[in-house]
Amino acid sequence: MHQGIGFIQDLAVVMALAGVVTVLFHRLKQPVVLGYIAAGVIIGPYTPPFQLIHDEQTIQTLGELGVVFLMFSLGLEFSLRKLFQVGATAIVAALSEIVLMLWIGYEIGRAFGWATMDSLFLGAILAISSTTIIVKALSDLGVKREPFAQLVFGILIVEDILGIAMLVLLGGIAQTGELSPGIALITLGKLLLFMLVSLLAGILIVPRVLGYIARVGNDEMLLVSVLGFCFGFCLLVVKLDYSIALGAFLIGAVMAESRHLHRIEHLVAPLRDAFSAIFFVTIGLMLNPLVLVDYAWPIAVISIAVVLGKLVSCGLGTFLAGRDGRTAMRVGMTVSQIGEFSFIIASLGLTLKVTSGFLYPIAVTVSAITTLTTPYLIRIADPLSQRLARAMPPAVSNVFGMYSQWLRCLVPRSDGPTIFSLTKRIVVQIAVNLALVSAIFIGVSYGARYAAPLLAHWIGDERIQRVVLWSAALVLAMPFLVAVWRKTQSLALLLAEVSVQPEKAGRFTRAIRHVIAELVPVVSMFGVFLLVAALSGTILPPTGFLVGVLVCAAALTMLLWRWCVKIHASMQIALRETFDERPDA
Amino acid sequence: MHQGIGFIQDLAVVMALAGVVTVLFHRLKQPVVLGYIAAGVIIGPYTPPFQLIHDEQTIQTLGELGVVFLMFSLGLEFSLRKLFQVGATAIVAALSEIVLMLWIGYEIGRAFGWATMDSLFLGAILAISSTTIIVKALSDLGVKREPFAQLVFGILIVEDILGIAMLVLLGGIAQTGELSPGIALITLGKLLLFMLVSLLAGILIVPRVLGYIARVGNDEMLLVSVLGFCFGFCLLVVKLDYSIALGAFLIGAVMAESRHLHRIEHLVAPLRDAFSAIFFVTIGLMLNPLVLVDYAWPIAVISIAVVLGKLVSCGLGTFLAGRDGRTAMRVGMTVSQIGEFSFIIASLGLTLKVTSGFLYPIAVTVSAITTLTTPYLIRIADPLSQRLARAMPPAVSNVFGMYSQWLRCLVPRSDGPTIFSLTKRIVVQIAVNLALVSAIFIGVSYGARYAAPLLAHWIGDERIQRVVLWSAALVLAMPFLVAVWRKTQSLALLLAEVSVQPEKAGRFTRAIRHVIAELVPVVSMFGVFLLVAALSGTILPPTGFLVGVLVCAAALTMLLWRWCVKIHASMQIALRETFDERPDA
Repeated sequence: MHQGIGFIQDLAVVMALAGVVTVLFHRLKQPVVLGYIAAGVIIGPYTPPFQLIHDEQTIQTLGELGVVFLMFSLGLEFSLRKLFQVGATAIVAALSEIVLMLWIGYEIGRAFGWATMDSLFLGAILAISSTTIIVKALSDLGVKREPFAQLVFGILIVEDILGIAMLVLLGGIAQTGELSPGIALITLGKLLLFMLVSLLAGILIVPRVLGYIARVGNDEMLLVSVLGFCFGFCLLVVKLDYSIALGAFLIGAVMAESRHLHRIEHLVAPLRDAFSAIFFVTIGLMLNPLVLVDYAWPIAVISIAVVLGKLVSCGLGTFLAGRDGRTAMRVGMTVSQIGEFSFIIASLGLTLKVTSGFLYPIAVTVSAITTLTTPYLIRIADPLSQRLARAMPPAVSNVFGMYSQWLRCLVPRSDGPTIFSLTKRIVVQIAVNLALVSAIFIGVSYGARYAAPLLAHWIGDERIQRVVLWSAALVLAMPFLVAVWRKTQSLALLLAEVSVQPEKAGRFTRAIRHVIAELVPVVSMFGVFLLVAALSGTILPPTGFLVGVLVCAAALTMLLWRWCVKIHASMQIALRETFDERPDA
Repeated sequence: MHQGIGFIQDLAVVMALAGVVTVLFHRLKQPVVLGYIAAGVIIGPYTPPFQLIHDEQTIQTLGELGVVFLMFSLGLEFSLRKLFQVGATAIVAALSEIVLMLWIGYEIGRAFGWATMDSLFLGAILAISSTTIIVKALSDLGVKREPFAQLVFGILIVEDILGIAMLVLLGGIAQTGELSPGIALITLGKLLLFMLVSLLAGILIVPRVLGYIARVGNDEMLLVSVLGFCFGFCLLVVKLDYSIALGAFLIGAVMAESRHLHRIEHLVAPLRDAFSAIFFVTIGLMLNPLVLVDYAWPIAVISIAVVLGKLVSCGLGTFLAGRDGRTAMRVGMTVSQIGEFSFIIASLGLTLKVTSGFLYPIAVTVSAITTLTTPYLIRIADPLSQRLARAMPPAVSNVFGMYSQWLRCLVPRSDGPTIFSLTKRIVVQIAVNLALVSAIFIGVSYGARYAAPLLAHWIGDERIQRVVLWSAALVLAMPFLVAVWRKTQSLALLLAEVSVQPEKAGRFTRAIRHVIAELVPVVSMFGVFLLVAALSGTILPPTGFLVGVLVCAAALTMLLWRWCVKIHASMQIALRETFDERPDA
């Protein structure tokens, strides 16, 4: 118990101080996050008179629990539905923000003569804005429900996804020391595949299970199950060498589709609040105020770069995506800070031992400064855009006006989209099913490492082992392969109809259309086979066996055709049902 | 981060398994606590095939957080108001249960030839029933609102207090190896004083602060402040060498008087549920199933002893306190199990290294068995008491009937109690104020160890240091001393009025009454001075200085008399206000 007592003493110091600070900073009308960080500095090892924390390691561990709960809550607020609504604008704005800030950060680092890896991490640190701070600032100013705020939330969602991709890529770069485009593409592809499959499988399973538990059980059962899912999935994600932040975010996004979302949010909020307080305090613990004095100059430059860079990049992105200048200005001002994601990236660099020690305190200080300025910037956005509009030369404002008009012309007219949207939908469905097929084969190949020794007990021949594994994957993938085949047929029919015009093909019209409609699916399935073979290289049976397996599979497919169609349809229906369900109030 | 990942893996295993188990045990209609313990056994080090936990120490630490939150929640449910309502009956029943079970447990241990300390801890383990299990069982059976259930809750509250006293005493015995009645009395006296002062001071301060925070802040602020108070107070308690469980319980009891009790309960519930799940899993972790086989015989005996012993002791206590036989039977059946408090006591023995390794698994198994039987026992209570009533010989039932009647005669008649209740009230007020005075002098004596080195900078003479410290304590205690003086005066007047009858004293009546009324307070204050001097021995100034201090104090008291009366009155009013406030719905 004595180790425990020491730990509880530490926790007591942290929580007691956090309690004082939260009241104090609320009175000072400053974000409480800053207060937590200040509390961390006070009790931290770098400031006299007391070293109040005995077992920093355990507190750090609890802080990591804070990251899990923070990312999980972000996931809960993430909503595929909301993302589809703000869609294109949010993606354009977030992309332009991230790319520009990555570049600015990298260039600043190089200009100060820092190492490549430090500069790269600085870029990543500056790229993502802080959801926590923004939500707080917008609700303090009472503008949370305005349209520009909705757009900002969309941008934050896209940023979260891109940020997670960045975390994965940075981890890869840090380990190999370089970024080849090929590896980056494979990494991102794998990540995308993993996210897609987890979301689909998760949304099929988790909301149903939680619905059952919420119906029969009490709050305690629901909470423990939610935490069980959350940590269980995090465990899986960590085993696959992704970050725990990704896992928490994804499982949160899955639960966001549950009918009981609000109840879950309610139950998880105290855990998030308690542990994120600890997380922010641990950030302060790592902060050495002396470093800040040494690096006052970079800190000033970077803070200005964050505010101006985000304003320009995100504002411009918003404008280019077709919103008016006032909205663009407000969006740009709102996202002009860095926060929790930056801390996560900075601590990734530290734990991977690829960044210098000064980067972390700089990130924290810049975050503190830009957090302080955020509410003022949001408030001056409107006056500023009015003044700008008045001061702008007529020629420039004409160009802007024409751009907006041109953009509106680009939107497809109402009589056009039937065939276009139909095609788009079929292509998306084929892509999703293909992704699932790929995931199954990759998954089985990955699992083969563990399954092979077990199989070896029964099957001595290594080739037969492969046949068994590959066949298993094939059977699992069958409903999705059948779906791909059927969708490709529809697509081919559509293509044949559209591409072969009677005016040109004359009396061959029907024949050519028939050939296209028959040939395209066959060719496509051959392509699918090549893809699958490439993905499952390690368990692909030798050619002779392969032909045998394929023939058997073809026979089995004929036999089970209706069953495959049925099972796929019911999965699709289940997924749509979950999506269409609104969370209970 | 890698230590963190390992820890999060452990946590993931614990939470994922807890999630599965909670659903499973709910379907099996068994208490989920048993499921958590079973989950702990499965992932624990004693059961093959896997050793799933890497860093048992950290999980244990989190389990201790579970104890904190459990005891804090118990405190929140503790209510001085409720305790006053069920009062005497609950105290008699709980006392008779604890004393008898302590004795039975000790005797069983001796009969099996165990060491004295093991036997003593066994007695303590068997003494306290499980609030968690009882609340669950009663609400499952739908009898939570019946009068006997209210009585059971009262008993549980008294048990909690006595259990905490037992924890303190056991800790003392374990360290010194023996229990001298004098030391036990002093220990209990100190504990009582500490509890009284913490409750009074806490109820004066904490609900007010929380009320302010709840008014101006959001849930996050309130939660962090509540946790700040909770852990801060736990820190203080631990520094005073009491257990953290006591601290959590007391601060919970203080917050139970807050208007925002329900909001606080709501915010803390997820933390309690999550961490108590971990706590129960860690109990399973420590359980070696092989020990259970070796100790099957003691386990059977102890389980039967728990059920029969508690039924008889608590039932008889209830009956002796004046309830009817049916209620007594139901109460006895309801409390017939052991639970979380027993685990806390058992792990105290383990961490103090005074008990043998087998005691813990025995406690857990007996708890599991008696938890399983509890719902059935509650259900058969009524049929059994009917059958007993029919089977009882008329002579016996006559005796019982006469006892009940006699008890009802004991209750004071309606015209009697005015002077009695007035006297009682004044005595209680004097006692409380004396307790506060004592606490101040003890506190300053205790604090002198830390203050003396600081004072030494300014004051060289050790005697002057004492004068300063003792005077400070005196000034602090002044309002309470004045109150003691004034209450003693009233008491003396009352005494003079009652004890000196004109029939006997004749024409001296007035004079004698006057002498008594004047003399009693002076004598009492001299007694108070002796008490204070004894308590503050280490900082008592030498006689010459002491006289000087007392003379100055007397002068100061005259000067500040009205102010002292005013401040005491406003504290009393504030306290009463907080007590009278009902928590918001």
